[in-house]
Amino acid sequence: MADEIDVIGIGNALVDVLCHESEAFLDLHGLVKGTMHLVDEARARQIYDAMGPAVEVSGGSAANTIVGVASFGGRAHYVGKVRDDQLGEVFSHDLRATGVGYTTATATSGPATGRCLIVVTPDAQRTMSTYLGASTQLGPGDVDPRLVARGRILYLEGYLFDPPAAQDAFRVAAGLAHAAGRKVALTLSDPFCVDRHRAAFLDLVEHHVDVLLANEAEICSLYQVRDFDAALQRVRRHCEIAALTRSARGSVVVGGGEVHVVDAQPVEAVVDTTGAGDLYAAGFLFGLSRGMSLATCGRLGSLAAAEVISHVGARPVAPLGDLAGALLA
Amino acid sequence: MADEIDVIGIGNALVDVLCHESEAFLDLHGLVKGTMHLVDEARARQIYDAMGPAVEVSGGSAANTIVGVASFGGRAHYVGKVRDDQLGEVFSHDLRATGVGYTTATATSGPATGRCLIVVTPDAQRTMSTYLGASTQLGPGDVDPRLVARGRILYLEGYLFDPPAAQDAFRVAAGLAHAAGRKVALTLSDPFCVDRHRAAFLDLVEHHVDVLLANEAEICSLYQVRDFDAALQRVRRHCEIAALTRSARGSVVVGGGEVHVVDAQPVEAVVDTTGAGDLYAAGFLFGLSRGMSLATCGRLGSLAAAEVISHVGARPVAPLGDLAGALLA
Repeated sequence: MADEIDVIGIGNALVDVLCHESEAFLDLHGLVKGTMHLVDEARARQIYDAMGPAVEVSGGSAANTIVGVASFGGRAHYVGKVRDDQLGEVFSHDLRATGVGYTTATATSGPATGRCLIVVTPDAQRTMSTYLGASTQLGPGDVDPRLVARGRILYLEGYLFDPPAAQDAFRVAAGLAHAAGRKVALTLSDPFCVDRHRAAFLDLVEHHVDVLLANEAEICSLYQVRDFDAALQRVRRHCEIAALTRSARGSVVVGGGEVHVVDAQPVEAVVDTTGAGDLYAAGFLFGLSRGMSLATCGRLGSLAAAEVISHVGARPVAPLGDLAGALLA
Repeated sequence: MADEIDVIGIGNALVDVLCHESEAFLDLHGLVKGTMHLVDEARARQIYDAMGPAVEVSGGSAANTIVGVASFGGRAHYVGKVRDDQLGEVFSHDLRATGVGYTTATATSGPATGRCLIVVTPDAQRTMSTYLGASTQLGPGDVDPRLVARGRILYLEGYLFDPPAAQDAFRVAAGLAHAAGRKVALTLSDPFCVDRHRAAFLDLVEHHVDVLLANEAEICSLYQVRDFDAALQRVRRHCEIAALTRSARGSVVVGGGEVHVVDAQPVEAVVDTTGAGDLYAAGFLFGLSRGMSLATCGRLGSLAAAEVISHVGARPVAPLGDLAGALLA
């Protein structure tokens, strides 16, 4: 198809508000390090008021991934909802400026563009408090069947299950992708998110998802097991392809009887782990959309994750296609 | 006085929108490297649309300086105008989060919060396109006489001369400071800004300003001379104190017959020169407000400038008071 898209991502459209704080800040505000907390507007304000000077940068898990796909040289499209406000403009600008297609109608009423307050602790871990805002207004009407049919892979973030209308959009989009003979990929997003939606996620993983992305905590949470290998054996039975990330221990990619253990790419200094999983997904899905081997897909994921944890912010600074070089040849 | 403030700064309140582009970008958009261009909303939009993915971070020349003063441990206050919008909230939050007093009434109508589109080229130079927005609504009514009387030094940015009502606020504030027996400091801000307001700036420097901050291009533009030493000899006749910065060649501080040639503080790598002059001013004015020697004031300026050019963004990341250590003892 002439106008094929490599990867279409659907997710909660958020602007990240990043600052550095001590561990004590997390304790004081009852935040669990390394996870994502959903907060209402009042609590978002309370946390923001307590935060030090911050940097604003476009975020959203699937949006970060899609920007990564574009950075590899892939054709990428994003679906997610912002309001017609300044942060919405920032979000839209930054997507389009990286060459991502983004045509979701902007909300003209209702809550403001969503924000993710990210506290980076001295150990480079990030802890997120998300005010979904306008993201909650994404619905099935925002899913364009012709667009979905053009995408080789439809990528859905687990976080989409939090706003009810977005959950409907999620299901409609997945159905449309499959009807068009396309692959559906899902990231479990966060162990707490898995807790909130375990039954639905189990059903999705076992019956509706072709490609699963998850980290160790998420996949163990899904199957309620403590041992990574136990989760690995479970997921092999259900998913056509799964890529399971384990931070510094690399990732394990399974599919069609193959099992690949892929090392993490070493980095000089881990500055901020925000976006590590999102960018692993970018490399993996870009490779998959271009028909590369599962091992190469895993290595592209490691490469992209290594780039993004080497600096502050959840989107790549260096062009990933250039970094990948020989891997793409 | 028990509630004395070290430095009060008045300036155009702006949020910086920073991105990295090649030199060709500047040529394409007719921008002169290293300078500040005033743009209207339409041209700001045109440049923003052409810019790559960006980072939003609070800026404004005098605001950056005042944050630097607070980072040294000084008592600092800021006067400048934002609107009641998202970027205005970002600006206010970031000032207050660094301990700066900020009580200027927010505009509830009129243009949006001002923005400075900053293009950083591979040589770490920054080129700025400023849409003043709500800054133009700052007027004499925003200058609280009781506040100004509490500040040991009132610091005014030359950029304030661009919006007419702010120019009035500038003159009123300077008059109030002098009436209270306080010092008035001015930065010339930018050689083009000096071109726009040369006659007024000459009058200010010769008759109304106690402390002048300028870089080489600005002071040469003020006196329309090509030679730094010629400008230096001119300014010595007029200003009680002047601190003239020369990038990597350090600075020259003159006052009361003294002349100090202060070396720039070496940095490992110059990443982004945005804020270099603003932070030099922070160190210099903090030292001056605490009665330190002119040589020490210059060294504090060099130290703060070195910190800010070592990373992206125009405000210090490391606490300057800690960095200064022995200099403050």
